[in-house]
Amino acid sequence: MTEIKDANNVRLFALNSNPVLAQSVADKIGLPLSKASVSHFADGEIKVSIDESVRGCEVYVIQSVSDPVNTNFMELMIMVDALRRASAASINVVMPYYGYARQDRKARPREPITAKLIANLLEMDRINRLITIDLHAAQVQGFFDIPVDHLQATPLFADFVQQQHFTNDLVVVSPDHAGVSLARRFAEAIKAPIAIVDNRNDEVRERSNQQVPEYVIGDVKGKTALIVDDIVDTGVRMSLSAQALKQFGATDIYGIATHAVLSGNAPQVIQESPIKEMLVTDTIMLPKEKDFPKLRQLSVANLLKEAVVRVHNHQSIRELFNK
Amino acid sequence: MTEIKDANNVRLFALNSNPVLAQSVADKIGLPLSKASVSHFADGEIKVSIDESVRGCEVYVIQSVSDPVNTNFMELMIMVDALRRASAASINVVMPYYGYARQDRKARPREPITAKLIANLLEMDRINRLITIDLHAAQVQGFFDIPVDHLQATPLFADFVQQQHFTNDLVVVSPDHAGVSLARRFAEAIKAPIAIVDNRNDEVRERSNQQVPEYVIGDVKGKTALIVDDIVDTGVRMSLSAQALKQFGATDIYGIATHAVLSGNAPQVIQESPIKEMLVTDTIMLPKEKDFPKLRQLSVANLLKEAVVRVHNHQSIRELFNK
Amino acid sequence: MTEIKDANNVRLFALNSNPVLAQSVADKIGLPLSKASVSHFADGEIKVSIDESVRGCEVYVIQSVSDPVNTNFMELMIMVDALRRASAASINVVMPYYGYARQDRKARPREPITAKLIANLLEMDRINRLITIDLHAAQVQGFFDIPVDHLQATPLFADFVQQQHFTNDLVVVSPDHAGVSLARRFAEAIKAPIAIVDNRNDEVRERSNQQVPEYVIGDVKGKTALIVDDIVDTGVRMSLSAQALKQFGATDIYGIATHAVLSGNAPQVIQESPIKEMLVTDTIMLPKEKDFPKLRQLSVANLLKEAVVRVHNHQSIRELFNK
Amino acid sequence: MTEIKDANNVRLFALNSNPVLAQSVADKIGLPLSKASVSHFADGEIKVSIDESVRGCEVYVIQSVSDPVNTNFMELMIMVDALRRASAASINVVMPYYGYARQDRKARPREPITAKLIANLLEMDRINRLITIDLHAAQVQGFFDIPVDHLQATPLFADFVQQQHFTNDLVVVSPDHAGVSLARRFAEAIKAPIAIVDNRNDEVRERSNQQVPEYVIGDVKGKTALIVDDIVDTGVRMSLSAQALKQFGATDIYGIATHAVLSGNAPQVIQESPIKEMLVTDTIMLPKEKDFPKLRQLSVANLLKEAVVRVHNHQSIRELFNK
Amino acid sequence: MTEIKDANNVRLFALNSNPVLAQSVADKIGLPLSKASVSHFADGEIKVSIDESVRGCEVYVIQSVSDPVNTNFMELMIMVDALRRASAASINVVMPYYGYARQDRKARPREPITAKLIANLLEMDRINRLITIDLHAAQVQGFFDIPVDHLQATPLFADFVQQQHFTNDLVVVSPDHAGVSLARRFAEAIKAPIAIVDNRNDEVRERSNQQVPEYVIGDVKGKTALIVDDIVDTGVRMSLSAQALKQFGATDIYGIATHAVLSGNAPQVIQESPIKEMLVTDTIMLPKEKDFPKLRQLSVANLLKEAVVRVHNHQSIRELFNK
Amino acid sequence: MTEIKDANNVRLFALNSNPVLAQSVADKIGLPLSKASVSHFADGEIKVSIDESVRGCEVYVIQSVSDPVNTNFMELMIMVDALRRASAASINVVMPYYGYARQDRKARPREPITAKLIANLLEMDRINRLITIDLHAAQVQGFFDIPVDHLQATPLFADFVQQQHFTNDLVVVSPDHAGVSLARRFAEAIKAPIAIVDNRNDEVRERSNQQVPEYVIGDVKGKTALIVDDIVDTGVRMSLSAQALKQFGATDIYGIATHAVLSGNAPQVIQESPIKEMLVTDTIMLPKEKDFPKLRQLSVANLLKEAVVRVHNHQSIRELFNK
Repeated sequence: MTEIKDANNVRLFALNSNPVLAQSVADKIGLPLSKASVSHFADGEIKVSIDESVRGCEVYVIQSVSDPVNTNFMELMIMVDALRRASAASINVVMPYYGYARQDRKARPREPITAKLIANLLEMDRINRLITIDLHAAQVQGFFDIPVDHLQATPLFADFVQQQHFTNDLVVVSPDHAGVSLARRFAEAIKAPIAIVDNRNDEVRERSNQQVPEYVIGDVKGKTALIVDDIVDTGVRMSLSAQALKQFGATDIYGIATHAVLSGNAPQVIQESPIKEMLVTDTIMLPKEKDFPKLRQLSVANLLKEAVVRVHNHQSIRELFNK
Repeated sequence: MTEIKDANNVRLFALNSNPVLAQSVADKIGLPLSKASVSHFADGEIKVSIDESVRGCEVYVIQSVSDPVNTNFMELMIMVDALRRASAASINVVMPYYGYARQDRKARPREPITAKLIANLLEMDRINRLITIDLHAAQVQGFFDIPVDHLQATPLFADFVQQQHFTNDLVVVSPDHAGVSLARRFAEAIKAPIAIVDNRNDEVRERSNQQVPEYVIGDVKGKTALIVDDIVDTGVRMSLSAQALKQFGATDIYGIATHAVLSGNAPQVIQESPIKEMLVTDTIMLPKEKDFPKLRQLSVANLLKEAVVRVHNHQSIRELFNK
Repeated sequence: MTEIKDANNVRLFALNSNPVLAQSVADKIGLPLSKASVSHFADGEIKVSIDESVRGCEVYVIQSVSDPVNTNFMELMIMVDALRRASAASINVVMPYYGYARQDRKARPREPITAKLIANLLEMDRINRLITIDLHAAQVQGFFDIPVDHLQATPLFADFVQQQHFTNDLVVVSPDHAGVSLARRFAEAIKAPIAIVDNRNDEVRERSNQQVPEYVIGDVKGKTALIVDDIVDTGVRMSLSAQALKQFGATDIYGIATHAVLSGNAPQVIQESPIKEMLVTDTIMLPKEKDFPKLRQLSVANLLKEAVVRVHNHQSIRELFNK
Repeated sequence: MTEIKDANNVRLFALNSNPVLAQSVADKIGLPLSKASVSHFADGEIKVSIDESVRGCEVYVIQSVSDPVNTNFMELMIMVDALRRASAASINVVMPYYGYARQDRKARPREPITAKLIANLLEMDRINRLITIDLHAAQVQGFFDIPVDHLQATPLFADFVQQQHFTNDLVVVSPDHAGVSLARRFAEAIKAPIAIVDNRNDEVRERSNQQVPEYVIGDVKGKTALIVDDIVDTGVRMSLSAQALKQFGATDIYGIATHAVLSGNAPQVIQESPIKEMLVTDTIMLPKEKDFPKLRQLSVANLLKEAVVRVHNHQSIRELFNK
Repeated sequence: MTEIKDANNVRLFALNSNPVLAQSVADKIGLPLSKASVSHFADGEIKVSIDESVRGCEVYVIQSVSDPVNTNFMELMIMVDALRRASAASINVVMPYYGYARQDRKARPREPITAKLIANLLEMDRINRLITIDLHAAQVQGFFDIPVDHLQATPLFADFVQQQHFTNDLVVVSPDHAGVSLARRFAEAIKAPIAIVDNRNDEVRERSNQQVPEYVIGDVKGKTALIVDDIVDTGVRMSLSAQALKQFGATDIYGIATHAVLSGNAPQVIQESPIKEMLVTDTIMLPKEKDFPKLRQLSVANLLKEAVVRVHNHQSIRELFNK
Repeated sequence: MTEIKDANNVRLFALNSNPVLAQSVADKIGLPLSKASVSHFADGEIKVSIDESVRGCEVYVIQSVSDPVNTNFMELMIMVDALRRASAASINVVMPYYGYARQDRKARPREPITAKLIANLLEMDRINRLITIDLHAAQVQGFFDIPVDHLQATPLFADFVQQQHFTNDLVVVSPDHAGVSLARRFAEAIKAPIAIVDNRNDEVRERSNQQVPEYVIGDVKGKTALIVDDIVDTGVRMSLSAQALKQFGATDIYGIATHAVLSGNAPQVIQESPIKEMLVTDTIMLPKEKDFPKLRQLSVANLLKEAVVRVHNHQSIRELFNK
């Protein structure tokens, strides 16, 4: 375990998106969360109050850009404005979940690239560093010109899987085309082959005028399938993938996703799917009403603690990638 | 009435904060609102879709930064990102209500200056111009380096007041110290004297250990008092001012405020106050549940129409200030 | 008294606007002023010569943007350019008087916002911090994105007033509408009520075709009136206010203003007015010919010394606001 | 066919990377290439000479960042500097091949993100627009904040394939995990299923201590396989994929890649592979010595001509994506 | 003669440094100077008032940065701020004399590079173009990234010299080492050889302990010598050079300098020197008291008129360099 | 000798232009070169690999922008990108030879100012400092806004010359007009007079229709002439100057130039000229094939070592200019 140096020069702040994780990271570092409150006026405007001096301090602000996305993001922006004006020496944003990351390119004409806009806004606000986990596309790191420490939850999940001593052969499954690289990386971590769920285009679906099941490319028969994705949002893709895997002969099916967005009735969708267990992390705080029996949450607190401490100590974070 | 030139090179877009006003402005200009939708994904992220080409067009985007403040602001930012990438020739933001304008200075240590942050973000997003109405402090205009066309609702209210043929002498009242300049300007428009409600400091209040009424500086006895402010938010200041004016002998009391934020139970607070009629504009869209008998809304649609047309035609907007 | 740490890493430079104050600040800090000369070539161009190394040093440059305004400002800009190129670690500008601060908004069409231009130029020149006193409008702080330490002379004046043991009741008077907030703040510091001098519009004056005296809103009869402003420039407003107060029954009248611009024949105007004593600070150096019997100058040297030391030591400057 | 408007306000410049394509685009637009020469001094420095006025003109500069990559890129940068200083009204860069696009993320610690650096440099040089074809990752578009018109060669290849009237069933093959999205898109254009070549990790390879053939995921038996990629560089991946496909039973194998980098002995590698025909475009100029019998080149000249004309005419380029 | 197009879209403004030249340029263009006043408040702050609309106009502001240098420069900066905020379409600065141009490098440690600072400030203020004459060093043009139209007075002087029909052989003399390139250029224009006045270093002078005359390198005996410089400031260098030339046998000596700074007692120094006639231009306005019998002023009005008209018409200014 | 402080916080990197000099500087500092490799992919793209952590380190990157100019420059840019993203505390570029420095102004219409472009690119890449030697024009220093430590090889050459105990009188010769200032500076260092080679314009040459020898201004008869220039490129100017000096009676002729570009057949040109010895430094690495008998190389390693150490120690580098 790495210990933080010059601790009295460090300030950790938690905003409103995920205070539980922030407190856990602070506890592991061995420092209290600094005193500040971020509340809202009656008209919805954000009110920031920082209750201790940050002059000359290295500040770490922990905030996920999760639902309510725009409010959480603006909380962060306004907090950074206040910290900068209050003479913080450096402002390091710890963003376990980077919202809007999926809007990272123009898929159709006249679309915004909101993931870049978010990056521009943070740089404009003069943050010094971003620490984040499992960006939807690795290229988002290039949306920034400041240092980005891009952590991975893969070792966390791989450790967990390896401790389960599954008796069947394992196969790692990408639920769509864009996620194959992540699946490949995970497969290498646990020494398993991969398969891909091929979501055929709508036109085919419409012409056939019938419910076309997803198609699975690769061999899953009799295997324990681990569907791996960075985000589980509405749960529909996870559920359809599981159904297709069942149909193609997979024995047991597990879902794995770093960021548990779980919007709408995602909990119900997954609970009722063939998925046996849905593994996620706590990058996004899970409200009670979103919990469901098949869900299991692993914590990234230790990962973030190590990252913050090493960044502050000027130590390499390289080994955090290879547990 | 001024007519727009080269109309086929103009695009007007309405976002979600105030589509009624936007439609009204468009109707008066004589152009349709361009086709676009700004909706939300299940997880709260904003989704922008622009359904006609804007290449080489002069674009006007109409959006108030009213409640939900952060969402409305991010809608605007993301829309501007999309328009810029879609090769709009210029992007003019028409912001009838500039949210966060009251956070325009550090009143206490370690506060943000959010009104400046908003300005920075809009400039970073490369808007070409801001058209807005009655900024909380005129200095906010200086937060920008691009042209800002800062319109005033004063002539609108002054016209209305003069049409009422009040029989009593009029007195214009500033409900606090910061608003005296606005009250003075309004008083000059209707040739009336001013008075000020002096909100004494809390310490005095606490020491006296009793309900201290507000104090009125200036002569209001037997007069019709017009309390003038830029924003009516919780309604508390408006109501306390009215009570104080009543106590100091004012006969009739009217409230006037450009921006009807009306947060929390402001409608009830004002309805139950000694205020006879509360005049506001439609810079902020009024949901049904916030309407109340004493409220009267004047429209800024014509003012905005004139501003947009003159800006587009490269005509001076000077005379919009002196009706 | 706070002592400076790591003093051998600090450099204090005085430019030409106010060497007396700069020397006084340096003496109180306990450091010599660093060797540099800022002179002028025969054609009026400024010539900067820094005679000791500033590599890796925290530099504080003391300069008021007072008359000759443009020359003093350019001296500062050129000095900063030289310091930056000479590898100073940080450049902190101590600007006791921020010139052009009154041009902080567009009062009429096609006006500049020079106070913002000044801020932009300083930021462009890459200063790291501004330390200043009593900006004309608090919003000017928001013209900057770097940290601004905005000090107040209010405690200094309040202390002085309280030591006078005035026997009459006191009333704090704002000489115009824009200054009410400052008057309110001062009134709270000395627990007194406020009044306002209402400068009626020109049209009224012209129509009445006669000398209209200023009007006073609020009760001043039999009281000792303290006219409080941030700047005393031509002295006309101060003098007219004093006359109006006299007419409305004030017993004794004192003028208080942080920045003694005293341009033109201001000394004579004030000396001949009903003002008993005019209190100012030394943010602007007073040439002999501008001194007059009623003038009394308090020094901000200790305030600036504390600010510089605390900023350098990374201590909060909060308590400088509440003596 | 779209015709260009206001043609006398347009200037087309070709730099040294691909004069043949540039001339072809110019011919199709119906304008001559403007007079300029970009040569080299004896010491390797680039010398730019523009021989006609560009004041107030809309300029289009055509340059691929192909081998010699750094020289071609600097030619472009220096040309843009000259055009800007010569008062061009707008500078539009037509970059058929965006070099360094594969360095779009940090795959390992302490790597650069050169594709972003290239974007930053172009924006710093103040280009107004980029027109490019088949970026390695769509996210690279987000590396820019200016408009990027991102064209696709997919319709060109799809048309060609459909004109071949292949008798076997077709299958579109992605040669690695990162390219699955492109393969999916191509497959949709020609209504075919997909397969993926799975390049297993080195560790597996080493442990088995023997030549491990690539693995194919998906059904290719008895089919005509079209390996689709954005870039064909050393030809190794293309060749290994073809071998694996052969082994898994594919009947005929075609290679398709937009950008013919063909570095080293790629021509030989591909010529000797099981690939029947290698389809590429002319985004990169093919020197004689790199031609080989199996290579077939389609031209993007018409695509670029349409893009330039529509951009200049302020017409939508949407339909260029759906032939 | 070139005529201006779209004249109603053009605005010409003169600031206070050189209204005579500005009026002359305007007359030659055939447009009136636009209405504006730039005056000073009692405390020295600059007050700008623009009295006609500039919305959407191409604006040309004529101002030399001559004595009072800092005031003239700030007048320009503040005017530009006002024009930008007033929605001028473009702001073109016509600066006949670029003050501070001699501070273009660090000659000693810890010096500023004020000529670059001036460039940075103008670009920060968002001017679109600089039109200037005979910069002290051509490299100053590179201090800008916007277009700079750098005009030369050489043809003007060369024409004049050629009309004099001097009977002696001519020799062009550089008064110091830095000016040899300018002398060479002038010499080529009139087909004459050059010579150089060699100002030996101070050490030599001190050791010899006596008045050391300047040394002339090159043959001047019996010739008419034309001392050519860009600036004549104190006149000392011009006078010393003339004395040296006399001593080395020159028959007649003429001084030529574009910019007549003439600071201090320069008129007397030159009048009393062996110089027969001192040729200058009117880039800097000559107050009565600086005129002297030997001085002859040529006007750059026509040169500036041609530059403004061609720039506005998007015509090349190339031929202005080769009369 | 100055010793480096806090050495474990320093990283020295050598890129590919001049590893020998870099190693020599590192040896003199007493630190190893940090582990990194900058290689090239098969297609010519640069591949950077940094093999040790640089978090929080003060990094010095040593690279000359010599032939291959564009590749060496891009190596530097990409390395800086990688270092910045890898959280280096500061990035100091040591550029012994600044390529493109001669393109420092627009000599003809529509030319680039590439020396400024290079400066812009480096600043855009966020380097913190440039350490360089003998810029072609001192004004190039002003192309930067960051600190530039501009070293001089003059003391090195002066020392060497003084150790030769030449018996003849010395004269320092500038080979053209632009270099007179450098020649003057060198002449002062060795207490000698100067002369200038006057390269007459082409027109004269063409009209006379015969080989016109260069003309020498100043007295060189019977003297040992030292031709001093910053760069020796093709050797033609050096050779022509030597021939002219011979013709005008110089006894012995030496060439001195800081940067040995020696492009094309420069070695032969100089070897066959009347030059007796050609002195250069090792700012540019000399490949074997460019060596020739008359060439003598002095090393700047000690100069660079002193600069790096003093910069790092925050000591003045002033005395490096006056050996």
